[in-house]
Amino acid sequence: MPRSDAQRNYARILAVAEEEVARHGAEASLEQIARVAGVGSATVRRHFPSRSALLDAVFQGRVEALNARARALAGAEDPRAALLDWLAALTEYAASARGMATALVRDENEPQQKRVCVRLTDAGEPLLRRAVEAGVVPADVTSADLLALIGGIVLTTEHHRDPAAEAGRLLALAVRGISPAR
Amino acid sequence: MPRSDAQRNYARILAVAEEEVARHGAEASLEQIARVAGVGSATVRRHFPSRSALLDAVFQGRVEALNARARALAGAEDPRAALLDWLAALTEYAASARGMATALVRDENEPQQKRVCVRLTDAGEPLLRRAVEAGVVPADVTSADLLALIGGIVLTTEHHRDPAAEAGRLLALAVRGISPAR
Repeated sequence: MPRSDAQRNYARILAVAEEEVARHGAEASLEQIARVAGVGSATVRRHFPSRSALLDAVFQGRVEALNARARALAGAEDPRAALLDWLAALTEYAASARGMATALVRDENEPQQKRVCVRLTDAGEPLLRRAVEAGVVPADVTSADLLALIGGIVLTTEHHRDPAAEAGRLLALAVRGISPAR
Repeated sequence: MPRSDAQRNYARILAVAEEEVARHGAEASLEQIARVAGVGSATVRRHFPSRSALLDAVFQGRVEALNARARALAGAEDPRAALLDWLAALTEYAASARGMATALVRDENEPQQKRVCVRLTDAGEPLLRRAVEAGVVPADVTSADLLALIGGIVLTTEHHRDPAAEAGRLLALAVRGISPAR
């Protein structure tokens, strides 16, 4: 098959995948995607060998935007505000995209860690490091911890009437602390 | 069918349900439960009209134990320690029981809220109220917030090598705060 055909095929499958994930979240059916795209299941699996690979592709645009946001905030004057701004953006993005929380959450049984998870952990790292250096975040907190916590907050608010608002509220609670030592 | 037969039936289905939920979590198949218990799907559905009803029954023992723990802690000298002790126990229980986190998480699309969720929210309420009165937890925090946060923490650590330890670590982070205001 000429290369341009393969590319068109890929683009069509991805467009269908985006719709199906928006509708059904991370559990979207690969068979249904193949059916709607008018290709065989084997073709879908060739492009996306795993569910994680599919989610990585579907959320690539959002991950790019969050990376760009992190880079823009890296030089901000207030390291605490910069980190919290980025965490809030991540939470809002994840809460408004069905299935993204599942892509955020680390699965130690998967040999290859999800790219969404790895790329966002890396993106948050410089912001976290500056906040720790400024003494506004405990030194033992990792950006993997922050991503895990946000992944959980988004999962737990998924069936809420206004998931993004509720997730933002729970994030704010985790930021200030349920009961910080005094 | 004589009443004692129905009771034996129920007990057998519940025992199988406990095993299947321990193995597959909240997504355990009702058909598989019926098959292993040697009854029809209709019989399973008569005893457990919804997945939530099934999870409520499976986790009843744990919920009882957590209720008892909350009552025992209600008169403790240090309201902060009492609340944190109970939240840690809830987190550890939920993290060590596959499927319990799903039962913890509120689903606003379900007309009848999950009993596990309602009963544990009620159990935590007196401990939270005392902690708020002592000024160690912000007044706008609700026990539903705490349950939601813990549900999320348990979901996000489900595929970790040591879920209970990792969930406890994330809870501790949310308790002291990612970046409490100073």
